[in-house]
Amino acid sequence: MDTDQITQLIDKICREARQASLQLAAASMEEKNAFLQLLAQELDIARPTLIAENQKDLEAGRAMDLTPALLDRLELTEKRIQQMIEGVLEVAALEDPVGEDIGKIKRPNGLLIRKVRVPLGVVGIIYESRPNVTIDCAALCLKSGNAAILRGGKEAIHTNRALAEVLTKTLARTNLPPYALQLIPTTDRYALSCLLKKDDFVQCLIPRGGESLIRFVVENSTIPVIKHYKGVCHLYLDEKADPEMARRITINAKCQRPGVCNAIEKLLLHDQLPGDLVGQILKDLHEQGVALRLDPETAKKAEAQGFTDFSPAQESDWDEEYLDMILAVKTVLSTKDAVDHINAHGSGHSEAIVTADPTTARSFQTQIDAAAVYWNASTRFTDGYEFGLGAEIGISTDKLHARGPMGLRELCSYKYLVDGTGTIKE
Amino acid sequence: MDTDQITQLIDKICREARQASLQLAAASMEEKNAFLQLLAQELDIARPTLIAENQKDLEAGRAMDLTPALLDRLELTEKRIQQMIEGVLEVAALEDPVGEDIGKIKRPNGLLIRKVRVPLGVVGIIYESRPNVTIDCAALCLKSGNAAILRGGKEAIHTNRALAEVLTKTLARTNLPPYALQLIPTTDRYALSCLLKKDDFVQCLIPRGGESLIRFVVENSTIPVIKHYKGVCHLYLDEKADPEMARRITINAKCQRPGVCNAIEKLLLHDQLPGDLVGQILKDLHEQGVALRLDPETAKKAEAQGFTDFSPAQESDWDEEYLDMILAVKTVLSTKDAVDHINAHGSGHSEAIVTADPTTARSFQTQIDAAAVYWNASTRFTDGYEFGLGAEIGISTDKLHARGPMGLRELCSYKYLVDGTGTIKE
Repeated sequence: MDTDQITQLIDKICREARQASLQLAAASMEEKNAFLQLLAQELDIARPTLIAENQKDLEAGRAMDLTPALLDRLELTEKRIQQMIEGVLEVAALEDPVGEDIGKIKRPNGLLIRKVRVPLGVVGIIYESRPNVTIDCAALCLKSGNAAILRGGKEAIHTNRALAEVLTKTLARTNLPPYALQLIPTTDRYALSCLLKKDDFVQCLIPRGGESLIRFVVENSTIPVIKHYKGVCHLYLDEKADPEMARRITINAKCQRPGVCNAIEKLLLHDQLPGDLVGQILKDLHEQGVALRLDPETAKKAEAQGFTDFSPAQESDWDEEYLDMILAVKTVLSTKDAVDHINAHGSGHSEAIVTADPTTARSFQTQIDAAAVYWNASTRFTDGYEFGLGAEIGISTDKLHARGPMGLRELCSYKYLVDGTGTIKE
Repeated sequence: MDTDQITQLIDKICREARQASLQLAAASMEEKNAFLQLLAQELDIARPTLIAENQKDLEAGRAMDLTPALLDRLELTEKRIQQMIEGVLEVAALEDPVGEDIGKIKRPNGLLIRKVRVPLGVVGIIYESRPNVTIDCAALCLKSGNAAILRGGKEAIHTNRALAEVLTKTLARTNLPPYALQLIPTTDRYALSCLLKKDDFVQCLIPRGGESLIRFVVENSTIPVIKHYKGVCHLYLDEKADPEMARRITINAKCQRPGVCNAIEKLLLHDQLPGDLVGQILKDLHEQGVALRLDPETAKKAEAQGFTDFSPAQESDWDEEYLDMILAVKTVLSTKDAVDHINAHGSGHSEAIVTADPTTARSFQTQIDAAAVYWNASTRFTDGYEFGLGAEIGISTDKLHARGPMGLRELCSYKYLVDGTGTIKE
């Protein structure tokens, strides 16, 4: 396709999505759930095709020397197809957010104003190599009454086209608009650039991927973007932390699944914590296989406890998201120091304090600027399921519209329905 | 100032605003209200200075041949200073949105999750010639716990600097952070371009002004923007409209204040409305001084009623915001036609139907994609005061974050405070 053809294609996709979104906004919960049930069936039927198309992507990926980690993300196994199907059925079981009354006011002039939840309209999802995103996001968008425009990575294009065919086929079995869920069939960067300017038709973009993808979208888009940058999460052990709780939460927050955004990357230790507790925590982490990077103060304490399996922390360590078994540790003089450090270096995702002092805990929670602030709990709980929102489309590190886990409600806007009796403005 | 100096200046302003915002987020309602009371006093004291500085802007404006309308917007009279003071006191009287509990859930694992309202952080206001915006927005941002960066138009720079001095002087009389409210002291476009890229420090931009200003901000900003594009508002008179109500609401929605965004610009008439009612409504409007632009079908009906004081509507009329005593009128065959026309040409602001049929009304309200959808009422009610939100910082035509009138709550985000008992993820 040349650039003119791509321009026209993206324009067509966006216009059709906008039209579809107007119909979808009025779709009933029954219609939407029936679609999701059918989608689960069609995915089941399509298993052999999906696996075969995915093989093409995997072969191409191997030929392009993709890393094993990337190839793993790309792969669609029988088990992963099963998980997609179960995910779709879970979304079907969630409550429909659309039409919910979220405010009502009777004005002195007799106007009755009701605020009701409505879909955002058209949501664009821009993602990388995981093909399950295609189905997960399509299901969440449709259930929340939104049309979706899906733009996956080039590595997964065969798989994504096959998945998009399943979506189209399923839509054709319902009365829902056929263009409710569309995949951009080309991964040309120019097509993405066109999409990013379609603010007349697309209400919101959600990039799911690495920081450079998100940065590209933010810098080039005229459409509002909900960002999920990174999780530079901290755990702060206050001087009044219960020692056993401190050890348990530290290990859990770092090691239970180190490759996810709500795992901690930094540990802050109050200067007054007992030296043997500091030594014990560092040894715990080392035994779990965590590579430790210590600031000079913590290093001194570690050495005093006979612990030397660490390297010195560099200045850049305080801002880095490792997503790996690495932890930077710093000693702070007070809760205020901890708060200042976190507000300066954190990514606004999840932060935690362990302390037996409720006043210190509340002060920490109030002053920390992050989506979720934990007291005596692991940061690992920041996700849609753990927060009781059901499946999530992402975790926002933005403060506008949605912050933290984004479920179905966060895929909605609202409107005011105003009933009068011939009411005019005096 | 050269570009290096401007770059440094904007960086300094943004960093200080971010620091101030962290302190402001923890400020009590009493502290914030005390500031607003003092601000009212200081504005009163500063009257002579403000008038004198405003004279400089007015003289420069006349020398630059600004239009009378622009000079009027620019002018700060004693009455307008009084209105600013009263506006500040009204904001002081509003409820503090910060800290409000907006959700609470106890999870099976024992975690107690509370969702609480918090300020957005740093809000940038980019506006044109009205100097009152400086004080109105400063008051609303501060009351909602946000630091504000104000960037007014070059026509009002002397007035705005004088107003900013009042803000700084007032902040100095309190314990609130001195950089909570800052005016960018230069109106150089380069300074604005620098500000638009400061997404590390500024959480939200609100441009207040004409479409080209908003477009410039949207196209150049990496910070989320809440837009208030325009009000292309429609009134649809259904075949079952009460004739007297239809006449009354039409006149009110068009003529009560035609220069504002919630006045109607288009009238849609159901084809089955009685011919004499159509004639009567057109004559009513003509008598009020409204210039009428009719589509061919309506023109035919008008002529059949002996009414010829109109011009033909052009295709461009359906998308234009006149903000003047002009109205385009179109005949539609059904409510569905009306809905389709409005969803294609409206700006998502305020739309209205007059009908005695509740089913038609509900269907219209459900299908129309706009911030406020009225049934048997004038569109003129879409504002913060009329919706019971108090003073507003703008009316959003966006669907993300805030839609329609934006009051103090809409200047807020939220965060999750999660309390555990040593809770770890299994």
